[in-house]
Amino acid sequence: MRALSRRRFLELVARAGGARALYCTMAEIGLLPLPAYAGPPRLAPASGEGVFVVVLGAGIAGMTAAYELSKAGYKVSVLEARARPGGRNWSIRRGDKVEEKESTQTCAFEEGVHMYFNAGPARIPHHHQGILGYCREFGVPLEVMVNDNRACYFQDDGAFEGKPVSCRQVVNDSRGFIAELLAKAISKDALSEAVSAEDKERMLAFVRSFGALKADNSFKGSPRSGYRQAPGLSPGELGAPLALSELLRSEFWQYKLSFSERYDQAATMLQPVGGMDRIAMAFAERLGAAISFGSVVSALNKTEDGVRVIARDVKGREYAVEADYAVTTIPFSVLANISNNLSPAYASAIAACRYVKAAKLAFQADRRFWEEDHQIYGGISWTNRDITQIWYPSGAFHAAKGIVIGGYIWSDPIGEAFARMTPEERLEAAIRSGEKIHPQYRSEVSRGIAVCWGNVPHSNGAWADWPEGARESAFPLLMEPDGRIHFAGEHISYLTGWQEGAVLSAHHAVGAIAERVRARKG
Amino acid sequence: MRALSRRRFLELVARAGGARALYCTMAEIGLLPLPAYAGPPRLAPASGEGVFVVVLGAGIAGMTAAYELSKAGYKVSVLEARARPGGRNWSIRRGDKVEEKESTQTCAFEEGVHMYFNAGPARIPHHHQGILGYCREFGVPLEVMVNDNRACYFQDDGAFEGKPVSCRQVVNDSRGFIAELLAKAISKDALSEAVSAEDKERMLAFVRSFGALKADNSFKGSPRSGYRQAPGLSPGELGAPLALSELLRSEFWQYKLSFSERYDQAATMLQPVGGMDRIAMAFAERLGAAISFGSVVSALNKTEDGVRVIARDVKGREYAVEADYAVTTIPFSVLANISNNLSPAYASAIAACRYVKAAKLAFQADRRFWEEDHQIYGGISWTNRDITQIWYPSGAFHAAKGIVIGGYIWSDPIGEAFARMTPEERLEAAIRSGEKIHPQYRSEVSRGIAVCWGNVPHSNGAWADWPEGARESAFPLLMEPDGRIHFAGEHISYLTGWQEGAVLSAHHAVGAIAERVRARKG
Repeated sequence: MRALSRRRFLELVARAGGARALYCTMAEIGLLPLPAYAGPPRLAPASGEGVFVVVLGAGIAGMTAAYELSKAGYKVSVLEARARPGGRNWSIRRGDKVEEKESTQTCAFEEGVHMYFNAGPARIPHHHQGILGYCREFGVPLEVMVNDNRACYFQDDGAFEGKPVSCRQVVNDSRGFIAELLAKAISKDALSEAVSAEDKERMLAFVRSFGALKADNSFKGSPRSGYRQAPGLSPGELGAPLALSELLRSEFWQYKLSFSERYDQAATMLQPVGGMDRIAMAFAERLGAAISFGSVVSALNKTEDGVRVIARDVKGREYAVEADYAVTTIPFSVLANISNNLSPAYASAIAACRYVKAAKLAFQADRRFWEEDHQIYGGISWTNRDITQIWYPSGAFHAAKGIVIGGYIWSDPIGEAFARMTPEERLEAAIRSGEKIHPQYRSEVSRGIAVCWGNVPHSNGAWADWPEGARESAFPLLMEPDGRIHFAGEHISYLTGWQEGAVLSAHHAVGAIAERVRARKG
Repeated sequence: MRALSRRRFLELVARAGGARALYCTMAEIGLLPLPAYAGPPRLAPASGEGVFVVVLGAGIAGMTAAYELSKAGYKVSVLEARARPGGRNWSIRRGDKVEEKESTQTCAFEEGVHMYFNAGPARIPHHHQGILGYCREFGVPLEVMVNDNRACYFQDDGAFEGKPVSCRQVVNDSRGFIAELLAKAISKDALSEAVSAEDKERMLAFVRSFGALKADNSFKGSPRSGYRQAPGLSPGELGAPLALSELLRSEFWQYKLSFSERYDQAATMLQPVGGMDRIAMAFAERLGAAISFGSVVSALNKTEDGVRVIARDVKGREYAVEADYAVTTIPFSVLANISNNLSPAYASAIAACRYVKAAKLAFQADRRFWEEDHQIYGGISWTNRDITQIWYPSGAFHAAKGIVIGGYIWSDPIGEAFARMTPEERLEAAIRSGEKIHPQYRSEVSRGIAVCWGNVPHSNGAWADWPEGARESAFPLLMEPDGRIHFAGEHISYLTGWQEGAVLSAHHAVGAIAERVRARKG
């Protein structure tokens, strides 16, 4: 008998098991990379019957846990302090209220599917297959989120006379300068210990291509950096390259220039059509009455064989929930102030976790001036001023109006300074900075709204930022339950600030509970 | 009286004339860049009454010309050889026929808004404001076209054992190697004539940031290049960098590595939702009965005070059209074979224009394996094999099925080789190459369809590719009419292969006709 050829074998697998079986087989025998994400824990149907889990928080982590547990027959109750699901997954639209500790704003945007502001997470990297898996399962429509756009601007008060420079030019002139310098060093054999004589010409060709150098290895600008007059019926006219000294004086390159090469920021980035909260709404729809809105947890305690939670409802009435297990997704910035009998080691871990005081603000524009005047379709302009960024919408191109994110701040000192301002002062500060990028800004934007996450009740911060080393020492503990209390949320992950961290940590908690229940029942 | 401050002046302009007036004023006084694109020629209403223009070809150029002339009251007749508008703007769906000189294929894709194949143009750069202007005017919905995706692959038969390598890794390891070498040269003062002692530290910091170097200026890989195991509940584990020698052996860097930095390929790129032909259909809807489909031009002649066109209708009946002016958008590859009395200089210019023998082919996939198995959401994988590229759809993410472009060839020798194959042979060749990038390819794709543009009647090629210097000598002529015959089309531009070239050249022809009519009437 002849040995089965690999191709023949794979054909048989495909015929027997279909494409998915083929994929798994190929991955197992090393022909394809094994997927990093294995999917949610596979709980046997009805395996949770008779077990009651209370979930604290109807954010992405809490709803993920509740959804997966419900599917396996667990009785689940989700206590959510706010009147809406999603937690920091929050899309603000006309009429929505932004309540901070010292102010209340009401969103005055006009109506429209695209007239929203993602005050919390606003992008999903393509490899975040946990959260994307739920988008697939729930049929949440996705579109590309433009995270990097060569037509956007960099603006630095200390360089280029403070004038905005196109990303196209900054990025490609940088490449040109770097390539030219390297070519110079190679040409004069200054790197002969690193580049062999044999490789020299090939390396020079590589560098020329990389930087769009001339045949003589000089950088004189290139179409990549943009035109003074674009080609059309004439060949066009190139602009002059920036001055390297001026580029070095700017702060662009410190991280802004390579931001979109980051693993978690590189294309393709995605967003739900119509607002990030489409994901939260899809979860909430499936959980239905299992979520109790307006339920503010005031105490979380281990009991001998379960948990006891005290909460207050919207009318301020206190009530107790006793459950077999708890999954708490309450941010540590909030949990630290809730009465509990957690073990001291857990209390220390909770106290060690810092939260970023990020701020984000948005305006309505009655004309999409970024598209009409600047040919900017989505993407982000960067500045070294307080607002840090201006985001242009990645969808509804050519619509009459739009929402622009007028500032996204994640530096604590700046975020705290904004938090001390009234909402009106924040918006005025953002307009003053926005004018440096778009001189027409003040006359184009209105109806602004600003969220300072450090001031938002039930969040007390935007996302966890573990101090150096603190996560490594806290995690062995936090990945395990304290009695019957399991922990989940972006803060219980190495993907802090990302919904993916919330999903993966919830999966972990669900898996751990299921394992205990199986052991107990088995 | 006090002088008016600039801000006060601009406020007055805004109050009087609104945002658009403000923008124009700011541009005029140098506060904003003047827009490169001035819009279509402004023809006075009814200025064309009593004037008849015959337009040859209902592609983008022809329909642009006909639309603008119609709006100004011209009588317009568009003769189109095919049964559909758009010309090379062609989206193929279920049931559509691909007729080449020696074969006919019928598209067997399943139905679905996203189940189309853009056989011709498939992307629109954000600065192509002519064609985008019509999308805005006609309300053609646009979405982002992912032209560059770090999750896609490079595959080179001569490097990395022929295995696909992620774009993420190739791009960022290249940056790392380049930065490391440059840092080495700077550190040993090999570039002291170019980098002053004063700038040295700043330059090193710049280079470290650019290449994700360690503090000691070495490149040891970085998250930008991807992980062996992605972070999640653990910090993740980096992969090893590629070998520089292997990278140099590959052909990635020759242009593929910087392709998406090109002026006409850089983000943001756009596409109409549901197929590029949504633009053609929008034009055709507005032109209505002015387009005569199935009208094949057999002669184009200047007359004493106009033009005379001979055409054959779908039943082969010959008829003549006499008009005051003609705009011919027929590709020179076709016009060269049509009887005409053009002046010898024009005939020479027409003969000098070459056409690219590009080929493009597509498959249906019953499972979006690129999303499910590889986390690829749109974008392009590159290979040095014949197919050159695989394109993944930029929309309808997470749909059950999808259309993948299994090859896009613009090298003439390869395009001609494909044109000599039967459609089945082309598809088999594409699958054999696709398997090098996606080992599961053969079992995933089906219902392929292939277009070799050199074999497509009424096109005889994909786009104009003027030989070195030929355009410069032909254009002074072609931008002017030959008698009453005006020329338009992508070939009459410095944006050959782009719809924008078609639009701008049509605007030019329309403007020139309007000028003559005004002079004659005035």
